[in-house]
Amino acid sequence: MAEETSHYDVVVLGAGAVGENVADRASRTGLSVAVVEPALVGGECSYWACMPSKALLRPGDAVAAAQAVPGADAAVTGRLDPAAVLARRDEVAAHWDDAGQVAWVEGAGLTLLRGHARFTGPRTLVVDGADGTERVVTARCAVVVATGSLPVVAETFATVRPWTSREATSAHRVPERLAVVGGGVVATELATAFADLGSDVTVLVRGGRLLTGAEPFAGQAVARALADRGVRVVVGATVTSAVRDDAGVHLDVVHRAVDGAGNDTGGPERLTVDEVLVATGRRPATDDLGLETLGLRPGGALEVDDRLQVAGVDGGWLFAAGDVTGRTATTHQGKYDARVVGDVIAARFDPRPADAGDALGGPSRQDEAAAVPWSRYRATADTAAVPQVVFTRPQVAWVGRTQEQAAHAGLDVEVLTYELGDLAAATVTAAGYEGRAQLVVDTRRDVVVGATFVGPDVADMLHAATIAVVGEVPLSRLWHAVPSYPTLSEVWLRLLEAAGR
Amino acid sequence: MAEETSHYDVVVLGAGAVGENVADRASRTGLSVAVVEPALVGGECSYWACMPSKALLRPGDAVAAAQAVPGADAAVTGRLDPAAVLARRDEVAAHWDDAGQVAWVEGAGLTLLRGHARFTGPRTLVVDGADGTERVVTARCAVVVATGSLPVVAETFATVRPWTSREATSAHRVPERLAVVGGGVVATELATAFADLGSDVTVLVRGGRLLTGAEPFAGQAVARALADRGVRVVVGATVTSAVRDDAGVHLDVVHRAVDGAGNDTGGPERLTVDEVLVATGRRPATDDLGLETLGLRPGGALEVDDRLQVAGVDGGWLFAAGDVTGRTATTHQGKYDARVVGDVIAARFDPRPADAGDALGGPSRQDEAAAVPWSRYRATADTAAVPQVVFTRPQVAWVGRTQEQAAHAGLDVEVLTYELGDLAAATVTAAGYEGRAQLVVDTRRDVVVGATFVGPDVADMLHAATIAVVGEVPLSRLWHAVPSYPTLSEVWLRLLEAAGR
Repeated sequence: MAEETSHYDVVVLGAGAVGENVADRASRTGLSVAVVEPALVGGECSYWACMPSKALLRPGDAVAAAQAVPGADAAVTGRLDPAAVLARRDEVAAHWDDAGQVAWVEGAGLTLLRGHARFTGPRTLVVDGADGTERVVTARCAVVVATGSLPVVAETFATVRPWTSREATSAHRVPERLAVVGGGVVATELATAFADLGSDVTVLVRGGRLLTGAEPFAGQAVARALADRGVRVVVGATVTSAVRDDAGVHLDVVHRAVDGAGNDTGGPERLTVDEVLVATGRRPATDDLGLETLGLRPGGALEVDDRLQVAGVDGGWLFAAGDVTGRTATTHQGKYDARVVGDVIAARFDPRPADAGDALGGPSRQDEAAAVPWSRYRATADTAAVPQVVFTRPQVAWVGRTQEQAAHAGLDVEVLTYELGDLAAATVTAAGYEGRAQLVVDTRRDVVVGATFVGPDVADMLHAATIAVVGEVPLSRLWHAVPSYPTLSEVWLRLLEAAGR
Repeated sequence: MAEETSHYDVVVLGAGAVGENVADRASRTGLSVAVVEPALVGGECSYWACMPSKALLRPGDAVAAAQAVPGADAAVTGRLDPAAVLARRDEVAAHWDDAGQVAWVEGAGLTLLRGHARFTGPRTLVVDGADGTERVVTARCAVVVATGSLPVVAETFATVRPWTSREATSAHRVPERLAVVGGGVVATELATAFADLGSDVTVLVRGGRLLTGAEPFAGQAVARALADRGVRVVVGATVTSAVRDDAGVHLDVVHRAVDGAGNDTGGPERLTVDEVLVATGRRPATDDLGLETLGLRPGGALEVDDRLQVAGVDGGWLFAAGDVTGRTATTHQGKYDARVVGDVIAARFDPRPADAGDALGGPSRQDEAAAVPWSRYRATADTAAVPQVVFTRPQVAWVGRTQEQAAHAGLDVEVLTYELGDLAAATVTAAGYEGRAQLVVDTRRDVVVGATFVGPDVADMLHAATIAVVGEVPLSRLWHAVPSYPTLSEVWLRLLEAAGR
């Protein structure tokens, strides 16, 4: 086992979307960058999360949309084809082959090291190569941890080979009976997808509602829609034991359930399913990185500031981005952080002479050092304007603060709501279109600080709100942003009218 | 024939969407408002334009969307049902019964006068009632002309009973062969709709391309898509004669046509169709309003300033809004003007005592007099940020300036483009998704001054751009508006990256 030492300016741990973006941007001033990845280049999002889950969800959405339009419904006389959906999902997930991503990394002038990295000290790591080699890797300037997160699976499920998001999004068989434990984004999306594919789905939620990160009406709408499609949603549910045998997985569930008359009809029950998907959250993937050699706690989140620099490590060389920070939990926001940290590193360690003036504008050390909020060197949006889209049916999209969060932050807020079904556009989009939009307005500053959209096809309505929040565009100016008629965006006019404009 | 005289504070000519909005807002400080309408309350948009046309277009869109998704396509084994589409369109157009709109007008405390109004002098009109009465109507404060526009139909078609947008959107029979003369919004939308419904459609465009108000690539994409669906698009076409007999309408057409090798294969031809839709523009409906008594030219547009006050009439009492001004040509922008003029009138003629302090904030005469651009009393967006959505397939949506318009305005511009098909979201939205987004950036101010989106389902992507343009949000700040992954809005990130961020 030969040991060699390799020196780079920057080492990035993890070649998911976040690590790739960090590396690409950090290299822009000429720094040499290595990316270490033990698994597939491209990461969770490409193979086991965003992309395959959307591939599973889109067909049901498209069929439901056509069925909801009088005259179009006549064309939908068949059912969606689960085998074709899974085959398309395979394509979208690139058949779990990262050759395309590897080509991108290499084309970007980055060095890919396949293996698992552990710190042995500041700026120094050992990489156990996938090929059996072990090499020492040093970073002259910076190391960025972008190793992502892992699903949290309770001990209860230790012996039943539960699905996590990975197994669910890459499944090649549709289980006849599926239990989904959890009520968050992964749980609601995959419950929707497998119900579309023909599974008999039961959702077991520990709390009282779905999508607790969103406004309550969002989770309520999703729960109602799932129930309408025959999915059983059980609230206040705890799985006390799980056993797998030839007949399937047997779950002992304690739960409360409230019937129409307000009586608790819950209690213990035994539920037998073919697969159980555990979607009860994720934790930072920092167990085995040698963080203890830096004085940091393995297994925890890496706390960072708005430059993504890790707290508690001297010298300004250690950064983290993405799920591993506990600061963001989505690909897009992790990539945002990645762009910031990449730019910070490229500027702070800019190797070019001080009088260089090239396409990148020459050394930018001063700019980075003097950076203010909303500059390219600060991830300011992480605390003010994080968007999230849940591709359930109805879709749920929100950005910024919920009403409750705004109140907690001490803001004087006005909440504006409008039923999307009352819009002219809704009438032509679908018979019986149901949805709601809500803006949370900071009345002292006259700006939108939060927005939520629930309904079919609202995913791309969100970015208008994100721009309004990030741009701090006053309502008095938004009044002049005319929505086209008849589009669903007309709700902006209705919301502003509701604000007394 | 009894003649009576009625006195109001404000008289609004036309009870379309624009007139309704003017009247509603003008009445907010307590002014008495009468609305005069000779035809259906609710206007063109509700019965013969936006709404029924969208009802005709949506089914084809929904079916095509499902067909484009592998796995969902299996469910689409039938065809859309034209009779059901037309029946749904009838519902959307309220069966051309304005009872609901009348109830709204009366509920809003407005007086509806059914009839045709003509000026006999300043602030004085005669209304020829639908019931045969003739009454004099005076306006103490203001008159607003919101009579809309009429289709332009060349003499060539005088004897063939051509369709205009009215007959096309309210058709109860799908012609086997349809000629569409024109290449603008009405022409392209209705060509799409009738092709969906089964007509054999030929589009005859005088100029070289479709949708001349948009970026050239938009019209090209629509032309390609129409051709792919079997619609014949003939450019440089002039109809020199039209004759109707029992076999249909015979059109003599002179045109040029260019084949794949660049040869002109055009020439004169005779085209026989069952109906011909003439969609060659609209003109202000000012023929018969007695404008000559005010020193204005009948038949022309009423030129207005940003308060919607008509130029050339003294006393600050005459206003106009909507198509009649030649300033805007869409319902949404006409309604925007309506809100402005309604607020101007409500404030300028506020009847409340100067020390009143009510829910409307008390007299606002001073506010209106001192108004600046982007205040509620100025229709500033009309010159900077007019949005337009064309519900063809692909959809076309734009706001603000095209590249050419920005150059004409003397701006230093950078044009950013990105192919929507290259987005992750496109991959899951449809197999073979094609589309394009473009931003026109004023590099001196670092703001977006124009945006164009072409592709399936882009209609609701536009409002983000409208807010960016109206809000004058710098690109450096837009960089922090993170689009959710994977949504089509991710194109914002790609466009900003293309700008070197």
